[in-house]
Amino acid sequence: MERVYLDNAATTPLDKEVMAEMVNVMRNYYGNPSSIHAQGREVRTLIEKARKTVAGLLNATPAEIFFTSGGTEADNTAIRCGIAAYNIKHAITSKIEHHAVEHTLNMMLEQGVIDKLSFVDIDEKGNVDYVHLEELLKNNERSFVSLMHANNELGTLTDIERVGDLCEQYAAIYHCDTVQTMGHYKHDVRKLKAHFMVCAAHKLHGPKGVGFLFVNHNVKISPMIFGGAQERNMRGGTENVYGIVGLAKALEIAYAEMENHQQHIQELKDYLKLKLNEIPDVYFNGETDSEKSLYTVLSVSFPAMDMADMLLFNLDINGISASGGSACSSGSNIGSHVLTGIHADPNRPSVRFSFSKYNTKEELDYVVEKVKEIVDKNVAV
Amino acid sequence: MERVYLDNAATTPLDKEVMAEMVNVMRNYYGNPSSIHAQGREVRTLIEKARKTVAGLLNATPAEIFFTSGGTEADNTAIRCGIAAYNIKHAITSKIEHHAVEHTLNMMLEQGVIDKLSFVDIDEKGNVDYVHLEELLKNNERSFVSLMHANNELGTLTDIERVGDLCEQYAAIYHCDTVQTMGHYKHDVRKLKAHFMVCAAHKLHGPKGVGFLFVNHNVKISPMIFGGAQERNMRGGTENVYGIVGLAKALEIAYAEMENHQQHIQELKDYLKLKLNEIPDVYFNGETDSEKSLYTVLSVSFPAMDMADMLLFNLDINGISASGGSACSSGSNIGSHVLTGIHADPNRPSVRFSFSKYNTKEELDYVVEKVKEIVDKNVAV
Ligand SMILES: Cc1ncc(COP(=O)(O)O)c(C=O)c1O
Ligand SMILES: Cc1ncc(COP(=O)(O)O)c(C=O)c1O
Repeated sequence: MERVYLDNAATTPLDKEVMAEMVNVMRNYYGNPSSIHAQGREVRTLIEKARKTVAGLLNATPAEIFFTSGGTEADNTAIRCGIAAYNIKHAITSKIEHHAVEHTLNMMLEQGVIDKLSFVDIDEKGNVDYVHLEELLKNNERSFVSLMHANNELGTLTDIERVGDLCEQYAAIYHCDTVQTMGHYKHDVRKLKAHFMVCAAHKLHGPKGVGFLFVNHNVKISPMIFGGAQERNMRGGTENVYGIVGLAKALEIAYAEMENHQQHIQELKDYLKLKLNEIPDVYFNGETDSEKSLYTVLSVSFPAMDMADMLLFNLDINGISASGGSACSSGSNIGSHVLTGIHADPNRPSVRFSFSKYNTKEELDYVVEKVKEIVDKNVAV
Repeated sequence: MERVYLDNAATTPLDKEVMAEMVNVMRNYYGNPSSIHAQGREVRTLIEKARKTVAGLLNATPAEIFFTSGGTEADNTAIRCGIAAYNIKHAITSKIEHHAVEHTLNMMLEQGVIDKLSFVDIDEKGNVDYVHLEELLKNNERSFVSLMHANNELGTLTDIERVGDLCEQYAAIYHCDTVQTMGHYKHDVRKLKAHFMVCAAHKLHGPKGVGFLFVNHNVKISPMIFGGAQERNMRGGTENVYGIVGLAKALEIAYAEMENHQQHIQELKDYLKLKLNEIPDVYFNGETDSEKSLYTVLSVSFPAMDMADMLLFNLDINGISASGGSACSSGSNIGSHVLTGIHADPNRPSVRFSFSKYNTKEELDYVVEKVKEIVDKNVAV
C-alpha cells in the first residue's frame, strides 16, 4: 500500500486543478501587478478576479478581502491591527488557540499594548464556556475576542454565531481563526458577526505560502507590513500571484464539492472512530459528534505506553502519516498546549488523524490493523 | 515583434528551470515541514537544503538565513526587530529608500518606538554623502542605519562596504536593502559589515511571494510574525515550500551565470544609453557608469511633454513595458519620492528601462525607434 496520509489538518495535498491554474500563471504571466503597462495590468486582473471569487463565496465584498502569506500572518494582522485600531486594552482568548493567536496576544501583553489578557474557561472537550465569556465581556471595558472556529488538534467546534452575538452585545471586536474550517463549511460573513476571519490555502488543497484576511468593512485598520500600495495600502509587498490564483481556485473547488466531501469524510471519521473504539482503553479527545466537531479531525487518546513517541513512530514506519503529542507535563516544554488546556492525561499519547477528500475506507482498514498491532505490542498490561 | 519587457527591476520572468523545480515540489511533496513523519521530514529537508544553498552562496551560515514572504516582509523584520533588539532610539536613512523601508521607519517614529529619524544627504545623482553620514553617526547615540545597495529607480549604487565600516566604527546596526542587487552581484556577508540583508526572489527570475532575510549571527532578534516554531522560532507560519525551493534555485542560477549575464546586460544598457543620448534634451537620472550604477537599470529623463503619462502610455501601446514617473510636484501626492529626493524637475517625465538576461539588442533597436517617434510627436518645440 502507498503511504496513508492522515495529517490533513497540518496540510493537504495540492489539488491537480489548482496546480494547473498556478502553472499557467507561472508560465504565462509575469508582470508586476503594480506596473501600469499591459503585462502589469493583466496580472492585476488575475488578482482582482481571485479576490472577487473569494469574496463571492463568503458573501463578502472584494474590499473586505486582503491576501496574506498565510494563516499566521492573517492572524497576526487581525490581532495586532484590530487591537490598535480601537486602542483596546483587554483581550479575551482561550488556552487552546493556535500559537499564531496565543503567542501574538502574549507578546502584546508583554509589550504593554494591552493591559490584560483573559482566558475563557474551556471544558474537558474543548468547549467554550459561553457564560464565562459573557462575564468577561461584561466585567471589562471594550474587549478584543479571539476564539477559533474549529480547534486544529481536537476538532471541537465553537458556536461562533453565539460568540459573534455576545461580542456585538458588548461592543467587542471579534477575530475568529477559521483556518481549519475555511472551505469545509460555508461561511457567510453577513450573518456571522466576526470582524476578522482568516484562511490558509494549504489547508484546503491550495498552495502553501498564501492566505487571506477578511476584515469587515466597518473596521478600519492600518497595515502590519509596510511598503508599497498593494492590497489597497493594507499590505506592502509584491503579491504572490500564483499563490493567490491557486487559493481562489482551491476555495472555489471546496465550495462546489463541499457536500459530497463532507459526507465522504464524515463517513471515514465515523468509521475510524467505531473501529478504534474496539481497542480497550482507547477514547477520543474533544467532541466527536458531527454537529460539535470538525469532520476532518479525530483525536485519539491511547493507553500509556513505554515511550511517548512510540506510537507515531511506529505508524510512520508502517507508512502512516499522522500527528500527535501528549499534554505538556509540568517542567517539560514539549507536548501540546491544547491537550494541556483540556487537562488531558500527560501519560497518554494522543494521535490526531485528519482526513481529506482523497482518503479511502481501505486506507483506514489498514490503519486500524496497524494501530491494533502497535498497541498490542507496546501497551504494558 | 513580441512585447518588449524592460521592467525587470519591478519583477522578472520566472526562469524555466526554477519553475520545473517548483512544479516537481508542488506535484510530489506535500507534507508539512513541521510534521515529524516521513512526508513532513522530506519537505523539511527540501527547505534546509535550500537554506544551505542560499547561505553557501552568500558565505553565510544556514542559521543566518530566514525565509520570508518577500523583500518587504524582510525589510520590515530587519528594521522593526533590529531596532527592538538593541532598543535603539535613532535611525538614519535617506529620502530615496524603497517604501518598505521608508514607511516602516516613519511608522516607528510616529509610534514613538524611535525618537528621531535622520536623513543622510543625497546628491542629485542619488549618492550618499558619507561625510554627512559620519556626522550623523557621531552626533547621535547608537543608530540604526538603513541604506540600500542599489536604488531601484535610479540604479545608483551605494558603497555599502564604506557604510558598513562607518557603522562598525560607531557601533551602529546596519540594514542594507539588497533587493535590487541580490543575484546581480556576489555578496560576501563575512566581508560586508551589514547586520541585515534582504532578498525578493522575483527580482532574479525566482517566484513571487518569497524572499529571505540575512541576520548576522551576532544579532539576536525576536520575531515579527508570531506563531509556530518555523524558521527556528523566528517566523511563524507554514513555509512556502515551492517558493523557497524556487528561490534557492534562482539564486544558484544567478550566481553560476553572473559574469555572462552582467556582461550581456551591461552591453545592452550602454547601447541604449548611447542611442537615447542622440535625442536632444534627453539625459539620465542617477549614476550611469558601470562602477557606480546597477547594470540592470537605466533611468531616462525626457523633455517636458503635453501629458505626464503620455510617454509610458505610448510605449505600452507599442508593446514596450517599462516603468516611469516624475518627481512629485508640490501639492500632488502621486509621482516618485525618489525623483523628488534627488530634486528632479517635476515637469520632465522619466522612464526606467530595466533589463534582464532575456533582453536582446534587437529589442532595444525597436525601443529606440519607438521612443524617437513618440518624442518627435509629443515634445513641444
Ligand atoms: C529596493 C527594494 N526594496 C524592497 C522591495 C520590496 O520587494 P517586494 O515587493 O518583493 O516585497 C523592492 C521591490 O520593489 C525594491 O526594489
Ligand atoms: C487553527 C489554525 N490557525 C492558524 C494556523 C496557521 O496557519 P499557517 O501555518 O498556514 O500560517 C493553523 C495551521 O496550522 C491552524 O490550524
